[in-house]
Amino acid sequence: MTKPTAIRPPRSGAPDPDLLPEGLADRLPPRAAEAMRVTRAMVDAMAAHGYDPVQPPLVEFERSLAARMAGVRTNRMVRFTDPVSLRTLAVRADMTVQVGRIAATGMGDAPRPMRLSYAGQVLRIRGDGLEPEREQLQIGAEIIGADNVAAAAEAVLLAIDALKAAGASGISVDFTLPDLVDTLAERAHPMAADTIDAVRRELDAKDAGGLASAGGEAFLPLLYATGPFDSAIAKLEEFDRAIIDGGALGTRIAALREIAALVGDAARLTLDPTERHGFEYQSWFGFTVYAEGLRGALGRGGTYRVSGEAKAGHPPHDEVATGFSLYPDPLIDANGLTPASRIVFLPLGHDRGAAAALRFDGWRTRAALHDTDDGHALGCTHVLGAAGPEAI
Amino acid sequence: MTKPTAIRPPRSGAPDPDLLPEGLADRLPPRAAEAMRVTRAMVDAMAAHGYDPVQPPLVEFERSLAARMAGVRTNRMVRFTDPVSLRTLAVRADMTVQVGRIAATGMGDAPRPMRLSYAGQVLRIRGDGLEPEREQLQIGAEIIGADNVAAAAEAVLLAIDALKAAGASGISVDFTLPDLVDTLAERAHPMAADTIDAVRRELDAKDAGGLASAGGEAFLPLLYATGPFDSAIAKLEEFDRAIIDGGALGTRIAALREIAALVGDAARLTLDPTERHGFEYQSWFGFTVYAEGLRGALGRGGTYRVSGEAKAGHPPHDEVATGFSLYPDPLIDANGLTPASRIVFLPLGHDRGAAAALRFDGWRTRAALHDTDDGHALGCTHVLGAAGPEAI
Repeated sequence: MTKPTAIRPPRSGAPDPDLLPEGLADRLPPRAAEAMRVTRAMVDAMAAHGYDPVQPPLVEFERSLAARMAGVRTNRMVRFTDPVSLRTLAVRADMTVQVGRIAATGMGDAPRPMRLSYAGQVLRIRGDGLEPEREQLQIGAEIIGADNVAAAAEAVLLAIDALKAAGASGISVDFTLPDLVDTLAERAHPMAADTIDAVRRELDAKDAGGLASAGGEAFLPLLYATGPFDSAIAKLEEFDRAIIDGGALGTRIAALREIAALVGDAARLTLDPTERHGFEYQSWFGFTVYAEGLRGALGRGGTYRVSGEAKAGHPPHDEVATGFSLYPDPLIDANGLTPASRIVFLPLGHDRGAAAALRFDGWRTRAALHDTDDGHALGCTHVLGAAGPEAI
Repeated sequence: MTKPTAIRPPRSGAPDPDLLPEGLADRLPPRAAEAMRVTRAMVDAMAAHGYDPVQPPLVEFERSLAARMAGVRTNRMVRFTDPVSLRTLAVRADMTVQVGRIAATGMGDAPRPMRLSYAGQVLRIRGDGLEPEREQLQIGAEIIGADNVAAAAEAVLLAIDALKAAGASGISVDFTLPDLVDTLAERAHPMAADTIDAVRRELDAKDAGGLASAGGEAFLPLLYATGPFDSAIAKLEEFDRAIIDGGALGTRIAALREIAALVGDAARLTLDPTERHGFEYQSWFGFTVYAEGLRGALGRGGTYRVSGEAKAGHPPHDEVATGFSLYPDPLIDANGLTPASRIVFLPLGHDRGAAAALRFDGWRTRAALHDTDDGHALGCTHVLGAAGPEAI
């Protein structure tokens, strides 16, 4: 009996598993230059809106990475025992929680609202079916000390601005209400804790039959309050009016409408009020960002809380925040390449002053190191002649 | 009996070991912005000289990180078992070996000499007395396929250029001959393998007595052929003439003189021909870079070989290379801060078109989110009035 040979499709993440582990990849020229350009454009867009960058370390105490925001799981992180402290360290899988730590400790006394940005690599111990990549570039912005409509709209608009600056087009944003079921249970439709869990699960699965048998028949209309923002918010309002003591969602619906009005035509807006995937720690508002031609979400954000016990001289901490994280790798891979730069080949014995002057004027140069070096083969577009650069 | 209390000096690396592990630190505003500025300036200097960036992953197979260059030790890396491949992975501690892998495999067929640059965080499992930091920013450039005088001089000059672009001044460069003892043993002064090891060790320790008793009395003059380049190279030449069959170092000495002439007055030059610390994989030429006012080396470089067995469809590989790595963290910490940018406070209900126009003109803006937000407290220098920005 022979075993059938599995045909293994090539993975974009790791073209050669014998050279690099699955889900990890090199970015080679000219893609690495495009990645730097995208990072700069996004960080600069955030700086223009008043955000100051922070750079937390690659590695922290596992407990720190899990302590300050709800729902953060460390079992997806690379963890190891620190030979110095003998405590467990983890490689960051999400920089937002690091910014939360900074907000609660080192920058606990800075004036609020405080705007911080970050850009760096994050790592997880394994990929999954939809996202085989284990390492990603994460770029984000957080407003610490505000979670109102103005903060939410600023976060949505800045995410759109940063993506456009990086070359994305046809951006759409999907709004959600991450704590919708809890809010309804609290304000309009009391339920036992395990019913709440079951209702959430069936709404996540978008399973009408399951929802009804879990005791959530009243929530069935939520499954249909999705799609283009204007029609979906109207259906959500209708549902809210119909449910016992109608109007429990009144402030939420008004807030969503205000955010949508502020975003205007900067992006196509949709609503999926029960969507919770990827919103582990968000509170009343969440959003997911997409761009034309790119599979999957480019990032997500929303409102959340940063809290923590008193620690190392810092008082206990609890404050609201709003922010977003973008994962621009698919955009970098799909972007057109910027036109190849003009590179001047410098023959052996060239005038070094002339070469430095060209670089000062924005040219790139590439010098001969052997008398056999061939400027054209080395990707140069020009050669330095007696009168300056000459096209090859 | 009471134990004396150890007075622990504050560490720059980890101000609070209860919040962050020893040797790991946050970079907060405005230092993080300075770190980004320095990184951009150095990467741009390399691009101007024809180097193309590559971005290898944070994590690789441990074997890959050790395989292609002599003397790379993985026991200083963070290692863990990959749940996917069940092989050992390591977090990179040196990006040069990753560039070596890329040169031998994915870019094995690109024309030579090939110029690559990189910038990223590297991590080691623990710090040591002189360098408690466990994470560093590494920025470097490699010329694959050349290790001659032209390549060596280009590497030295580019390291100087990149550091100056990043704000360093008073740069000095110390040249060394990493394989000096082997060369002498081969060409002029045959020794048993364990004598070679002992001589190397005593030269490293700069211990004249130990050197003599290890059978290296002939090499005693090397301990004094150090200091400012012109006088030290003259002493090295004198030593070379005196040793049996004089002239074994003739080509090396001529090469060092040529490199020094090409560097000219771009930096202060010194020579320490027996220095091997930090030159695990360098071959005939090595250099260390220092800048005024900064403790310790800012980086080092030199010539080396990239080699490896045939692997995953790639033929066996063996070629020469030249490059350098800079570790600009001390420079970033010591640099003056760039003058604070002008930030315009945008009151609630401001004209959004006017704010966008200001950002387009290079202003930073920071918007009010609550009616109590105070532009001055939030670090703004101006406020948007009816006629445009007004100084606060």
